[in-house]
Amino acid sequence: MDTWRTAIVDAGPDHIRVRGHDVLELMQRSTFTDLIFLLHHDRLPTPAERRLLDAILIGVADHGAGAPSCAAARLAVSGNRQSLAAAIAAGVLTIGDEHGGAGSGSMELIAAGIDRARRDSVSFDVAAAGIVDAAKRDKTRLPGFGHRVHATIDPRVEVLFALAEESRVAGDGIRFARALTAAMHERLKPIPLNIDGALAAVLVDLGLPPMAGKLLFIVGRVAGLSAEVLEEYTREKPMRIKIPVEYDGVPPRQNGP
Amino acid sequence: MDTWRTAIVDAGPDHIRVRGHDVLELMQRSTFTDLIFLLHHDRLPTPAERRLLDAILIGVADHGAGAPSCAAARLAVSGNRQSLAAAIAAGVLTIGDEHGGAGSGSMELIAAGIDRARRDSVSFDVAAAGIVDAAKRDKTRLPGFGHRVHATIDPRVEVLFALAEESRVAGDGIRFARALTAAMHERLKPIPLNIDGALAAVLVDLGLPPMAGKLLFIVGRVAGLSAEVLEEYTREKPMRIKIPVEYDGVPPRQNGP
Amino acid sequence: MDTWRTAIVDAGPDHIRVRGHDVLELMQRSTFTDLIFLLHHDRLPTPAERRLLDAILIGVADHGAGAPSCAAARLAVSGNRQSLAAAIAAGVLTIGDEHGGAGSGSMELIAAGIDRARRDSVSFDVAAAGIVDAAKRDKTRLPGFGHRVHATIDPRVEVLFALAEESRVAGDGIRFARALTAAMHERLKPIPLNIDGALAAVLVDLGLPPMAGKLLFIVGRVAGLSAEVLEEYTREKPMRIKIPVEYDGVPPRQNGP
Amino acid sequence: MDTWRTAIVDAGPDHIRVRGHDVLELMQRSTFTDLIFLLHHDRLPTPAERRLLDAILIGVADHGAGAPSCAAARLAVSGNRQSLAAAIAAGVLTIGDEHGGAGSGSMELIAAGIDRARRDSVSFDVAAAGIVDAAKRDKTRLPGFGHRVHATIDPRVEVLFALAEESRVAGDGIRFARALTAAMHERLKPIPLNIDGALAAVLVDLGLPPMAGKLLFIVGRVAGLSAEVLEEYTREKPMRIKIPVEYDGVPPRQNGP
Repeated sequence: MDTWRTAIVDAGPDHIRVRGHDVLELMQRSTFTDLIFLLHHDRLPTPAERRLLDAILIGVADHGAGAPSCAAARLAVSGNRQSLAAAIAAGVLTIGDEHGGAGSGSMELIAAGIDRARRDSVSFDVAAAGIVDAAKRDKTRLPGFGHRVHATIDPRVEVLFALAEESRVAGDGIRFARALTAAMHERLKPIPLNIDGALAAVLVDLGLPPMAGKLLFIVGRVAGLSAEVLEEYTREKPMRIKIPVEYDGVPPRQNGP
Repeated sequence: MDTWRTAIVDAGPDHIRVRGHDVLELMQRSTFTDLIFLLHHDRLPTPAERRLLDAILIGVADHGAGAPSCAAARLAVSGNRQSLAAAIAAGVLTIGDEHGGAGSGSMELIAAGIDRARRDSVSFDVAAAGIVDAAKRDKTRLPGFGHRVHATIDPRVEVLFALAEESRVAGDGIRFARALTAAMHERLKPIPLNIDGALAAVLVDLGLPPMAGKLLFIVGRVAGLSAEVLEEYTREKPMRIKIPVEYDGVPPRQNGP
Repeated sequence: MDTWRTAIVDAGPDHIRVRGHDVLELMQRSTFTDLIFLLHHDRLPTPAERRLLDAILIGVADHGAGAPSCAAARLAVSGNRQSLAAAIAAGVLTIGDEHGGAGSGSMELIAAGIDRARRDSVSFDVAAAGIVDAAKRDKTRLPGFGHRVHATIDPRVEVLFALAEESRVAGDGIRFARALTAAMHERLKPIPLNIDGALAAVLVDLGLPPMAGKLLFIVGRVAGLSAEVLEEYTREKPMRIKIPVEYDGVPPRQNGP
Repeated sequence: MDTWRTAIVDAGPDHIRVRGHDVLELMQRSTFTDLIFLLHHDRLPTPAERRLLDAILIGVADHGAGAPSCAAARLAVSGNRQSLAAAIAAGVLTIGDEHGGAGSGSMELIAAGIDRARRDSVSFDVAAAGIVDAAKRDKTRLPGFGHRVHATIDPRVEVLFALAEESRVAGDGIRFARALTAAMHERLKPIPLNIDGALAAVLVDLGLPPMAGKLLFIVGRVAGLSAEVLEEYTREKPMRIKIPVEYDGVPPRQNGP
C-alpha cells in the first residue's frame, strides 16, 4: 500500500507535532481553542481570534435535548449502552445542511458575494441586493437566515458580532453579512440572520475555509452531545424514550405474491 | 409522548442556559474548555483546572492519520463525499476500550484503588500492590498502561503530571497512578503509564466521573478528525486509499446447496 | 503495511468468491438469504434452514417508526439530507443489548445451558431451573425474556418455533429455550420469551455463533431502516420532528468562575 | 409532540403489518428479498422480480476487506470491541456517490434519458448520444461507468442482464443502459458499464425510485460487513491494523502565538 501523506500531524514514537508545533509545548502554553484554530488554519490565532472562536464553539455546543443531534444521541444510549462513541456518532450524523450545517453554505454565499463586489467594483450593498434578488426570482432559500425557534432574532448573533467588532476581528465577512441582512429585509422578507449565518460571517473573517462552517459546528456540538449522553446514561433507564407513531398507509390486506 | 427531562441545558426562544449559566455571558467571558468542564461537572473550572483540561484535550486531539479513528474518517471521505458528519462519525466509532477509551477503565481502577485504601486504612502503595498482584494472578491487563508506539514512556504523561503538580490540581488521582506505576514496575513488568492512564489520573483529580475518560477523549479527538477530514477532502481524490488484502480461506468450490 | 488476511471473500479483477463459492453462480442460483447464511457459516443452508432464516430476518426487519432505531434514522434524515448512509448508520447505532441485540446474550445463555446439561448429565429442565434460580438469587435479568409492547406473548415467537418444528430444524436450542421458559414461569415470573429469545433459540439450532444474534438483527433491521429513511426523505420536510424537553436542573445563576 | 405518521409499518401489541401485509404470514410464506421489495415498493414482487433482486443483493454484498466499507468496519472492530453496531455503522458511512452509491445517480440518468426519448419522440440511441455528447462537452463523468478494479468489464453486469432478459424483467431501463454504453464507446471512451450502472438499469425496470440505487446497495453490503466484522472480532487482535503515514507538511517550528 502507498504511504498516506498528511500535512497536519507528524506523529512518531518520541514526538507529535501539529503543523510543525510541538504538542508538548502546545499542552503547556496553548488552549484547546488555539489548537482547533491551528488544526483548521496554518497558524495559531491571535488572542482576539481565539476569543471569537471560543464564543462560536460555546454558542453551538448545545441547544437542548430536543434538537435532532441530542435526541438521536439519547435514543442511541436508550438502546445501546455498550458504546459511548456510538451514541455521540448517532448525534453527529443528524448534522447537515438542515441542522447545524448551514454555516458552510452561508460561508460560500458570503465569500462569493465579497468576490463579486471586488470583481465588479460594486459596493457590498449592491452585491447583496443582487444575491437577494436572484434568490427571490429562483425561489431559493439563503443559507444562514431563519430559525424554527428564534422567529425574530437569535441573541447569540449580536453577541458574536459585538465581540468581533470590539476585538477588531470583524472584517469583510461581517460587513457583507450585514449588507445581506439589510437587503433581505428591504427586498424579500424580514427574516433574521441565524446563528449559522453569524458563525459563517465570523469564520470568513477568521480566514477559515467554507467547510469549517459545518466542521466547527460539529466540534462544538460534540461537547454538548457528550454531556447529554453522560446524563442519559447515568440518569435514565434503557428504552425510556417512547415516540407515538400513527399508521396512515394501506389497510390490512391478504399476503401472497 | 412524555416530555424528556434534562438537567444540563435550558433552551428557549430567548435564552440558552447551561447548568444555570447564561450562554450569552459564557460566550463573552469563558473559553470553550470552561464550557466543556461545566457540561460534564456542575460548576465552572478554576484557572488551574482549565489549564489541565486544555492540556488533556490538546494531548489527545490527534495522533496522526494512521490511528484507527483518523484512518476510518479518511476512508469515509474517500467513498462518501456527501456528508462531513458521516466522516467524523466513522472516526468516532473506532474509539473504544482498545483505542482512546482506556481512560474510563483506568479512572474506575484508580477510583476503586483510592476507595480501597481509605476503606482498609492502608497506604496507596499497599492498595496498588494488591491491584497489581490480582492482575498478575488473573492475567488481566491493567487499563492505562502500555502503548503500541511509545514502548518506553509517552512524553505527554510527564507534561500532564508536571502541569498538575505545579498548578496544585494534582491530588489522590495522580498519587495513586504513581503508586500503581511503581507497583507495576516492581511486581509485574516495567510497562509505562500511557496517555489514557495519565489523563485518567488527572480527570479523577478534576472530580469528573469515569465515563469522562472516554467522552473527553472523543471531544478532543473530534477536533483532530475534523482537520483530517478537511485535508482528505480538499487534497486527495475519492477512492485513493487502497488496502491490500490476501484471501486465506477455503479454495474455489462448486456452488449448490 | 501488512496485507490483511480474510477467510470470507476472495475478490480479484475477474472474480469474487464467498467462502470458495463463485458469486456469479450464487447470483444465478441462490437467494440473498442463502448468501447471508453462507457469510456467517461455512456452507450454504438447506431449504429448511433458509426458510427459518428468512422468517427471522422478516420478523426483525421493522417494528414501526417509534422504535429507537427507526426514530434515530428519521431524525438524521430530518437534519442531514446529504447522505442516506448517515441516516441508516444513525439507526444502526441504537442497536445494542437493550434494543434488538438481546439475541446475542440469549444465545450465550442457551448455549451455556445446553453445555451444562451435557457436562453434568442432567436434563434440560434441571439445567434451566439452575439458571433461573441463579438469576432470582442475583437479581439479574435473563436476556430474551420480556418486551415493552408485548406484555403477554409476541406472536412472532410461536410462528418461528412452529416453522422450526415442522421443518425439523428445531433442535437443542429450541428445546432448551422451552425448558427455560417453563422454569421461568414456575420459579420466577410468567414473563414470555420475546422475539430476541426465539431468534436466539433458532440461531443456535442453525449452528450460528452468539454474535450472530446481534448481527443478523442488524442485517434484517437495515432493510426496514432503509424504507423508513426513503419515506422520511420523500414525504416529510426537514426538521419536522419536534421533541418536547423540560429542564429540571439548577435555576438561573450568575456566570463567572 | 405531534404523532409521526408512517405509510410503511403498522405495529401494535398484537400485530405488525408491512404495507398492509401481516408479518406473521410473511414470515411463513415469503423470503427476506420479498420483504425488501415490499418495503421499497407498494407490493410484493413476482418470482422473476424476486430473482433479480436476489441477484443484485448478492452481487453487492461483499467485494473484499480492502473496499472502504469493509476496511472502515474492521478498523472500528480494531479499536472499539464494545459494539458490533458501531463497526457496521462505520462501514456503512463510507458508502456514498464515490463508493457503492453511484447506482442512484445512474438511475436518475437512465430515468431522465427514457423520459427525454419519450418527450422528444426520439430513439433511445439518439437520446443516449445526446447525454454522452453533453458529458463530453461539460467534462462530467457519467455515473455507472468505470471501476478501479474491473478495467474491462465486470462479469456481474452480464449475469444481471442475462437474468433480467431470460426472466423478461428487462425493460426500458436495461435497453437504455445498453444504448448509453454503445454511445459511450462510439462517442467518448470505451469505458464499461459497472455494477452500479447495471444495478441501476435493473432497479429502474423493477419500478424502484432512484434513491433505491444507494439504499439497496447498503442493504446488500451490510450482510457482507456483518460477516467481515464477525471475522475481525473472532480471528484478529485489537489494534492489529497499522497504516503507514508520511508527514509532508511544514518543518518543526517554535510554538507561540
